[in-house]
Amino acid sequence: MAAETCSASALAALMSTGSPSSNATGAAQYICSQFENVALQATDITTAVNTTYLLFSAYLVFAMQLGFAMLCAGSVRAKNTLNIMLTNVLDAAAGALFYYLFGFAFAFGSPSNPFIGRHFFALKSIPTPDFDYSYFIFQWAFAIAAAGITSGSIAERTQFISYLIYSSFLTGFVYPVVSHWFWSVDGWAAANRNPGDSLLFRSGVIDFAGSGVVHMVGSFVTIVKSYGPIGSTTHGQWSAVARAAVTTTLAGCTSALTTLFGKRLQTGHWNVVDVCNGLLGGFAAITAGCAVVEPWAAVICGFVAAWVLIGFNLLAARFRYDDPLEAAQLHGGCGAWGVLFTALFAKEEFVNEAYPGRPGRPYGLFMGGGGRLLASHIIQILVIAGWVSATMGPLFFALHKMGLLRISLDDEMAGLDITSHGGSAYFYHDDGTSGPTGSGGNAGFMMKVSHSRVDHESTPTQTPNQV
Amino acid sequence: MAAETCSASALAALMSTGSPSSNATGAAQYICSQFENVALQATDITTAVNTTYLLFSAYLVFAMQLGFAMLCAGSVRAKNTLNIMLTNVLDAAAGALFYYLFGFAFAFGSPSNPFIGRHFFALKSIPTPDFDYSYFIFQWAFAIAAAGITSGSIAERTQFISYLIYSSFLTGFVYPVVSHWFWSVDGWAAANRNPGDSLLFRSGVIDFAGSGVVHMVGSFVTIVKSYGPIGSTTHGQWSAVARAAVTTTLAGCTSALTTLFGKRLQTGHWNVVDVCNGLLGGFAAITAGCAVVEPWAAVICGFVAAWVLIGFNLLAARFRYDDPLEAAQLHGGCGAWGVLFTALFAKEEFVNEAYPGRPGRPYGLFMGGGGRLLASHIIQILVIAGWVSATMGPLFFALHKMGLLRISLDDEMAGLDITSHGGSAYFYHDDGTSGPTGSGGNAGFMMKVSHSRVDHESTPTQTPNQV
Amino acid sequence: MAAETCSASALAALMSTGSPSSNATGAAQYICSQFENVALQATDITTAVNTTYLLFSAYLVFAMQLGFAMLCAGSVRAKNTLNIMLTNVLDAAAGALFYYLFGFAFAFGSPSNPFIGRHFFALKSIPTPDFDYSYFIFQWAFAIAAAGITSGSIAERTQFISYLIYSSFLTGFVYPVVSHWFWSVDGWAAANRNPGDSLLFRSGVIDFAGSGVVHMVGSFVTIVKSYGPIGSTTHGQWSAVARAAVTTTLAGCTSALTTLFGKRLQTGHWNVVDVCNGLLGGFAAITAGCAVVEPWAAVICGFVAAWVLIGFNLLAARFRYDDPLEAAQLHGGCGAWGVLFTALFAKEEFVNEAYPGRPGRPYGLFMGGGGRLLASHIIQILVIAGWVSATMGPLFFALHKMGLLRISLDDEMAGLDITSHGGSAYFYHDDGTSGPTGSGGNAGFMMKVSHSRVDHESTPTQTPNQV
Repeated sequence: MAAETCSASALAALMSTGSPSSNATGAAQYICSQFENVALQATDITTAVNTTYLLFSAYLVFAMQLGFAMLCAGSVRAKNTLNIMLTNVLDAAAGALFYYLFGFAFAFGSPSNPFIGRHFFALKSIPTPDFDYSYFIFQWAFAIAAAGITSGSIAERTQFISYLIYSSFLTGFVYPVVSHWFWSVDGWAAANRNPGDSLLFRSGVIDFAGSGVVHMVGSFVTIVKSYGPIGSTTHGQWSAVARAAVTTTLAGCTSALTTLFGKRLQTGHWNVVDVCNGLLGGFAAITAGCAVVEPWAAVICGFVAAWVLIGFNLLAARFRYDDPLEAAQLHGGCGAWGVLFTALFAKEEFVNEAYPGRPGRPYGLFMGGGGRLLASHIIQILVIAGWVSATMGPLFFALHKMGLLRISLDDEMAGLDITSHGGSAYFYHDDGTSGPTGSGGNAGFMMKVSHSRVDHESTPTQTPNQV
Repeated sequence: MAAETCSASALAALMSTGSPSSNATGAAQYICSQFENVALQATDITTAVNTTYLLFSAYLVFAMQLGFAMLCAGSVRAKNTLNIMLTNVLDAAAGALFYYLFGFAFAFGSPSNPFIGRHFFALKSIPTPDFDYSYFIFQWAFAIAAAGITSGSIAERTQFISYLIYSSFLTGFVYPVVSHWFWSVDGWAAANRNPGDSLLFRSGVIDFAGSGVVHMVGSFVTIVKSYGPIGSTTHGQWSAVARAAVTTTLAGCTSALTTLFGKRLQTGHWNVVDVCNGLLGGFAAITAGCAVVEPWAAVICGFVAAWVLIGFNLLAARFRYDDPLEAAQLHGGCGAWGVLFTALFAKEEFVNEAYPGRPGRPYGLFMGGGGRLLASHIIQILVIAGWVSATMGPLFFALHKMGLLRISLDDEMAGLDITSHGGSAYFYHDDGTSGPTGSGGNAGFMMKVSHSRVDHESTPTQTPNQV
Repeated sequence: MAAETCSASALAALMSTGSPSSNATGAAQYICSQFENVALQATDITTAVNTTYLLFSAYLVFAMQLGFAMLCAGSVRAKNTLNIMLTNVLDAAAGALFYYLFGFAFAFGSPSNPFIGRHFFALKSIPTPDFDYSYFIFQWAFAIAAAGITSGSIAERTQFISYLIYSSFLTGFVYPVVSHWFWSVDGWAAANRNPGDSLLFRSGVIDFAGSGVVHMVGSFVTIVKSYGPIGSTTHGQWSAVARAAVTTTLAGCTSALTTLFGKRLQTGHWNVVDVCNGLLGGFAAITAGCAVVEPWAAVICGFVAAWVLIGFNLLAARFRYDDPLEAAQLHGGCGAWGVLFTALFAKEEFVNEAYPGRPGRPYGLFMGGGGRLLASHIIQILVIAGWVSATMGPLFFALHKMGLLRISLDDEMAGLDITSHGGSAYFYHDDGTSGPTGSGGNAGFMMKVSHSRVDHESTPTQTPNQV
C-alpha cells in the first residue's frame, strides 16, 4: 500500500540539531516504525476488503447457476427435465475438479509464455503474494459460467457421457487458454499485460468481464467483475466497479424493453420468455465494456443487442438450427456485438482508469480514439472462433465416430429422463388418443414425482399415494 | 476521514530548536506528508468498503424481486402466471430506465429546493464527491422494490399497457419525490437534513428504510439499508446497521408466529400463505424504525403488525376489496403501523447515533421523548396519502377513460396468459363436464409448457412430445 | 488494532535537545496524537469490514433455508408439500425468537463456566466490545440451519404442534449448549479457549464450521464461517477464509461425482437427486476441517464421504429406516466422517494460523501431528450423541405419551396438507380406477392451486376458473 515509505535516515538528517543531547536517529526510527506499523495494518485491512469482495462476488457469479438451471428447466421439454438439471449440477462439480487440477494453471500460471500458463497445477504453490485462494474461487466461478452456457446448446439430444467429457475438456483446457490470452498479465492480447511487454496493436483487448472470453457469460457476471490480484484499491477503480453495475443494469433493461416491443410488433402478444432472453442478451453484450463506457452508451448497447438477438433468431429459424435456449444466438451473437461495441464506445478517461500505466493508449473509435482498439477486438473474435473450432471440433468428431455424441431418435422421442435417468420429473398419463396426429388438448397429463420415493419405495401399493 | 489533519507549520514551530543546523521545517513537512499519505490510503479503503457494502446490499434488495415474483406466481390464478411474471420482470427493466433518466434526479439531485431535486438527469455529473455510481444502484434497487409491490395489487385484471405506463410514472416521478422529502439532505421532512436547515417540528421523519417512503417495501430491505453517501464509517453507525438486521429478524418472526396461531384460532388449520404474509407484514412495519429501536421493541412491533394485517384483511373481505396479494393491507396497513411505532419506541441514544449532530432532538413518545416525532410521523402518513392520490389518481382516471385500465370480463375469465401473452404457463384440459356448476374434481388438468418450443416449433406433430 | 501505540514521553525523550527554545514534549504529543487519530480510523474501518463480512455471511447462510425448502418440497410426497414448506418457514421464525431469548445466552454468554453460558438473555448488555449485533445474527443463522436439518428427518408423519415444540427446544437449548462447548471461548472442549484455560488433551476440538456442532449443517455454511469476534483481520486468517471456500467446493464436487458414478454402477442410470445428496454429503464432511486442510485433502474427504453416504443408505434400506431426505445418513454419517477426517488431515501450519497462540499444539495424525486431536474428536462425537439423546429423547418420549408426536395412519395416507393445513399445494383427480392395486398410469392428476384464492373465494362457481 504505502507507496512512499518512511525513511528513518532521511528523517534523521532533517531532525539533526548538532546538539550532543539530541538523539535524532532514535527519534526518526521511532516515528518511522510507527508508520511501518500503520502500513502493515493498512495491508491487512486491504486484504480483508479484497477477500470479502472476491468471495462474495464469486458466490454471486455462482448463484447464476441457479438461474441457468431454472432457465434450462423452463425451456426444454418436460421429459428432459432431470437430464438438464443434472447437467447443470455437473457443470459445477466436474468443472471445479478440472479447473482445480489443470484449468487455473493453464489460465493464470505465472510466470509463463503468452500462450498458456504452466504453474499452480492442483493449486501447488498457492497462495503466492499475487494469487490467494479467493482469486482462484473467483475465476472458478467464471469458468463454471462458461461451461454452463453450453449445457443449454446441447440440451435434449446429447448423450450424457459425451456431455461429461466435453464439459470437462472445456473447463480444464479450452476456456482457460482463452482466458490466459486476454486476462493473464502474460497473455499476448491482454490489455493489462506486464509493463515490460508490448500490447497487441499497442492496445490489447478490453474484455473486462468476458463478452469474448467467457463466450458471453451474460447475466450478472459483469457487475461483479473485479480488478484481478490484491492491492489495487484506488478510488478510481472502485468507482469503475460501481459504474459496471450501472451500465450492466441499463444495457440489460433497455434490451429487455426493446425485445418486448419488437416481439409484440412481430407476434402480437407480450412474451415473457423473449423478454428474459432479451435481458440476457443485453447483459452478454455489455460484459466486455461495462467498466469503460458511459451509462448512455450502455443504453445504445442494449438497444442494438435486442435487434441482434431477434435477427439471429430469425436466421436460426430459417436454417432450422435448433437450440432450445438460443445459446448460440444469445451468447455468440450478442457477445460478439459487445466486443465490437466496446471498441466503438470505450471512453478515454475510463480506459486509463481501468487499465492504468499506459498513457496514450487507444480507445473507442466513435469517441475519437482511433481504430487500433477495433482491430484488436476483431482479432479477438477471429482467434476465439478459430481456437474453439480447432479444439472442440475434433473432440466432437471423435465422440460422434464412437457413437457417443447424439442420442437415438427413439430416445429423443421418449425423453432422456426415462432412458438415461431412471425416472421423470413429472408423471405422464397418455390416454391412448394422443399420438403424432392427436389434438393438443389430449396431450396427457403429468404431475410432480417424489424422487426419493421412486428410488426407495417402488412397491406397487405405494404408487397411488405417491402423488 | 482525517478530521485533524497534520499541520507542518504548527509542527515545525514545536520542533524548532534555534540551532542553525536544524531543519525543523523540513522534518515537519516530511512527517506530515507521511500522514497525508496515510489519510489518502484510509480514504481509498473506506471507499472500497462503502462501495462493496452498497453494491452487495443493492444486489440483495434486488434479489427480493425473485421472492416477489414467486409470491405473485403462487398467489394469482394459474391462468395469469405468465402475465404476473412478465410484470415482475418489467418492474425492474422499465423502472431502471425511468429512474436513470428522471427518478434519481428528482430524488437526490443536489443542491435543490425542499420539494424536488433537479440535477443528475441521466446520471449527468455523476460521480460527484458525495454521490458515486454505487449510491445510484442502491437507490435504484429501492425504487424497483416500491414498484414491485404495486404489481401484486393490480394483478389479474389490469391491461398490460396500462401497467407499463403507471409503473414507469411511479418509478420516474411519484416515488422519487417522496424519497426526496424524507431521505434527501434537502428534503423538507428529512431527519438527516443539511445542518443549516431547520427540521420539521424540530424532529423530521425517521423513516430509516422506508416504511412510509417505499410504501412499505417490506421483506429484506430494512436489513441492508445503509447510511447514505460515502464517508460515514463510525463505529456507532455500523453497530446500528447490525442492529437493524436483528430488529428486522425479530419483528418478522414474531409477526409470523402470531399470525400462525391467530389464524389457527380463526380457521382451525395451520396456513402457510398466511404465515408468509405475516412475516412480510412484520418486515414492512419494522422498516421505518429498524435502526433506532431496541430488539424487545421489535418483538412488540411484529406482534401488533400481525393483528393489523389480520384486521385489515377482515375489513377487506367485508368490503369485497379484492387483492390477491394483500398488498394494500400488508404494505399500507403494516407500513403505517410501522411509522407510528417508530414515533412511539425510538430510543434517544440510537436516534442520535443514526442521525447525529442535532443534540436534544425528540425521540419516541413511550421512551420519554415527547410528541414531536409522533406529530412528524402523522404528517408523513397524511402527505404520502395525499401526494399519491393527487398524482396517481388522475393517471388512473385518464387510463380508465381511454379504456386502457381494466380488462374485459371475458378476458378475466379466460385469463391474461391466453388473451395477452400468447400461451399459458401450464397446459389445460377441460373434459367438457366442468363448467360454472361443475364439481371441483373435474376442473381439468394442466402441465408445464416448454415455452420456447411453443414459439419455435408449433407444428402439430410436435405437440404430443411437447409435454 | 495498533499493537504498538505511540508513547509521547518516550518520543519526547528522544527528541529533546537541551535547547530551551525546543518544545520536544509538545512536538511529540502532536505527532502521537496524529497516530492515535490514525489508529481510531483503522478501528472504525476494521469494524466496518467485519460487520459487512458477518452480515453478508449470515444472509448467505440464511439463504440456505431456501435451498433446504426446495430440497424438502422435492423430496416429500406432493400431498405433504404445504406441511414441509410451513415447517421450513417456522424453523426460522420460532428459532429466531428462542435463540434471541435463550439460545445466544446459553451459547456465548460470557464470562461463564465451561458447560453453559448465562448472560445476554434477550440480548441484554449487547453490544459489548467483544459481541456486536452482527455476531448474534451470524450465530443465529447457524442455529436456524441446524434446526432446518431436522425438519427433513421428521417429514410426513409428525404432528405439527410437536414439531413446533421440539424445534424450539432444539434452537433454544440443545444446540446452544453444544456450540458453547466447542465454539465459546469458555467451552470445555473449544480449540479457541481463553489463553489461561487448558485445552482438552492439550488440543481441543477443531470444528471450524460445525461438522459436529451443527450436526452437520452441510451445504454452504462452511464457506462463510468467520473468525468469531471483531478485531482479527490478520493476513493469514483471511487467507484461511478463502481456503475454506476452496476446500468446501472441492469436497462437495468430488463427492457429487463419486456418487454419480457409484450410483450409476449400482442402478444403471444417472440420478440427479443422488448427486445432490452426494454434494451435500461432501459439504457436511468438510465443514469441520475446511480451514485447516490442504485442497488435495479435501478431494479425499469428498471421495470418502460419497461412500459413507452410499453405505449408510444401504444400511437404512436394510433396516427399513425411513427418512425421505436422508438427513440422518447425510448429516450424521458424513458429519461424523468429517470430524474424524479433520483429526487425520489437519495441517500444522494451518491449525496454528486458524487457532493461534498455542505453539506446539497437536494436528492431524496422518500429517505427523500425533493422536491427541483424534482423541478429542472421538470425545466430541460421543458427547454430542450422548447430550442429544439425553435431552431430545425424553422430550420425544413425553410427546409420544401425550399422543402428540406421530400422526395417525389415516392422516398419513390422506396427506398432512389436507388434514392439517386446510388445502393442498396441487389439485388431485382420482378417477376411481386407481386404488392400492391400480396401475401407476392412473394415479390421478394434479395441478397448482392458487392458495390465496382457496382461502378467500371458496364459492363453488369460482372453482372452474381457479386453475
